[in-house]
Amino acid sequence: MTIEMFEKPLGMRDDFPVIAKQKANLRNQGTELIEQAGYELLQTPTLEYYETIGRISAISDDALFKLLDSQGKTLVLRPDMTSPIARVAASKLLREKMPIRLGYYSNVFRAQKREGGRPAEFEQMGVELIGDDSLYADAEVISLAWDILKQVGVGSARIVVGHTRLLELILADFGLDSEQSSKVRELFVAKNGVGVEQLSRELPISSNKLASFLALMQATTVADWKQWINDENEEQIKLYHDMERLEELFKRNGLGDAITFDISFSSHMTYYTGLVFECYGAGSGFPLGSGGRYDGLMEQFGLQVGATGFGLRVDRLLESVSPEKIEEPQTLILFDEQSEQRAFEKAQQMRASGKRVTLQYAPAVQALEPFTDLFTEVIRGEALDNG
Amino acid sequence: MTIEMFEKPLGMRDDFPVIAKQKANLRNQGTELIEQAGYELLQTPTLEYYETIGRISAISDDALFKLLDSQGKTLVLRPDMTSPIARVAASKLLREKMPIRLGYYSNVFRAQKREGGRPAEFEQMGVELIGDDSLYADAEVISLAWDILKQVGVGSARIVVGHTRLLELILADFGLDSEQSSKVRELFVAKNGVGVEQLSRELPISSNKLASFLALMQATTVADWKQWINDENEEQIKLYHDMERLEELFKRNGLGDAITFDISFSSHMTYYTGLVFECYGAGSGFPLGSGGRYDGLMEQFGLQVGATGFGLRVDRLLESVSPEKIEEPQTLILFDEQSEQRAFEKAQQMRASGKRVTLQYAPAVQALEPFTDLFTEVIRGEALDNG
Repeated sequence: MTIEMFEKPLGMRDDFPVIAKQKANLRNQGTELIEQAGYELLQTPTLEYYETIGRISAISDDALFKLLDSQGKTLVLRPDMTSPIARVAASKLLREKMPIRLGYYSNVFRAQKREGGRPAEFEQMGVELIGDDSLYADAEVISLAWDILKQVGVGSARIVVGHTRLLELILADFGLDSEQSSKVRELFVAKNGVGVEQLSRELPISSNKLASFLALMQATTVADWKQWINDENEEQIKLYHDMERLEELFKRNGLGDAITFDISFSSHMTYYTGLVFECYGAGSGFPLGSGGRYDGLMEQFGLQVGATGFGLRVDRLLESVSPEKIEEPQTLILFDEQSEQRAFEKAQQMRASGKRVTLQYAPAVQALEPFTDLFTEVIRGEALDNG
Repeated sequence: MTIEMFEKPLGMRDDFPVIAKQKANLRNQGTELIEQAGYELLQTPTLEYYETIGRISAISDDALFKLLDSQGKTLVLRPDMTSPIARVAASKLLREKMPIRLGYYSNVFRAQKREGGRPAEFEQMGVELIGDDSLYADAEVISLAWDILKQVGVGSARIVVGHTRLLELILADFGLDSEQSSKVRELFVAKNGVGVEQLSRELPISSNKLASFLALMQATTVADWKQWINDENEEQIKLYHDMERLEELFKRNGLGDAITFDISFSSHMTYYTGLVFECYGAGSGFPLGSGGRYDGLMEQFGLQVGATGFGLRVDRLLESVSPEKIEEPQTLILFDEQSEQRAFEKAQQMRASGKRVTLQYAPAVQALEPFTDLFTEVIRGEALDNG
């Protein structure tokens, strides 16, 4: 046998009680906010057909865990929650209730090729708002993501907002064809400024516009975006006004300082079609989550409606939340044959008042001292007898 | 494409919001009791090596979901939680803290061969108490299972208790060899009284003992077991006294009437070695859960300690709990451009007082009437403007 008994598959982790507890707290706080905002929580199965969810997902094929079922069909472990929720939302039961607000807290899976500390299974918490094409829907999901970041205690939380469609229109105005545009956006995703500068020399951009093109990566407010808006393009004007309105809403609601409007911001998630965003916080070098508008995905399920949403990664949220050292009081009551009944009654009484109480038959403990050291309070049955 | 976009793999289900909510309630109630009794909750990965967890599990090989990882090793979707918890408990971090109390709420997987309504993924909630060989450990886990059944509101809850080792000794006293004994126990598991009677004619049981043998399936109290206890066998006497003590504890703690002591009770879970039990309730033809003592499993991970525990099936608990029709109040605030700010402020204020409030930009709703019908209260932004 080449596998040791204690080994786990690549990228798989045990959540020991301290972590499991912290996650449960995040889950409770996050899902409560999600429900209060009118979202219904649901749970989809771990396994889905590759033909439906696997193909549609924005996750690359080699990161999917695949297996065959007893009928020879290919299954996948769900790589994200957006496509399964789209499947559910498009079902008969829900499609007539648009706009639909659905939320989730679920584990998702990404196959890893080698050791590198990247998890192959992690939890996401998020929402999808389906069937509302207004900018208010986008504002709602960003505000909700923000509320969760604040509620769970993420330090230095920030949100970066971009707009896939507006960027596409602006790049076209610089004279780029779709292939050139897509190369530029790849470098934007990688935040590769040097690469953009190098590439710009090969692009058909007139020299008097070069400085303006290179400035795309510097924008931080909606006012900054104004310089690229084509006054003769109605779609650009409409989208720009939407962004102004959005910035106004965020400022009014107290998010103003925490939001960067970066017109060059792009996502590697290819299904986004409109507003896109990513969340950051202290303590994690990676985005804590991301979201945006995806108006094409629902079509795959036969629905001509837009949708917007976000997903936060629970493992990264944990890194970003200052770990409160909660010394949780935990009582041990040690008993023997004689004191059993009183010990039991004492435990019942303490638990009824909300305390955590471990009842332990003392003779069954091999090493009493290390065991009792695990508790904040130790009560001996004999003491209860005398009491 | 032979698979429809809405299809899910065999035995896989979506939990729509009502069910997801009921499960969340069960989870919260159950895990709170588990924690109050001093158990630490943990979470193990969905995927494990077949060589470690797959082989050890009591679940038959053809019910395992198997897949290959990128190194060509066989993985399984965890079929139960007992073996993964044994793996964790035997790790360095925990093995010196015996007795260890661990709890979980997790989904597990069983591959299905054909349509038949049997779920291929379902949730279990349970505990393992590892490193305590006393009867008090068995009493503790049965009482905890009972407390959960009562807390979540299972109607007509019952627990059936047997003892694998004592039954083995008694069957040996009837002159059965291990093969005959195992045949009898298979019929006991199936509760096949006719089969036991037929088989008894072929067994080497003396005619004056036949009535006593057939009475094994009739016992309901520990006193009933007395007739089969061999006065010259010290192990039997010890185990019988343990059972008397157990019955006494249960009576004192209010479980007396709900427990049947059935000496013929056996489990198809082959790793049980001592006390075994199953939980029943109104509304479900299947056991709601089961548990018992398994002293051999920890040895597979290099630990010479006993363990006892249980797992409850959440799907069956749901069937057994009278569904409370909780009409949860849910407010809709419809707004337009003009009333947006007041609508937002009203929603913030209502949510802060714990209410669920959906904020919706009215012009984005295609069919207003079916949508507003989903809410218990509808507030229009205009009304707020006038207020």
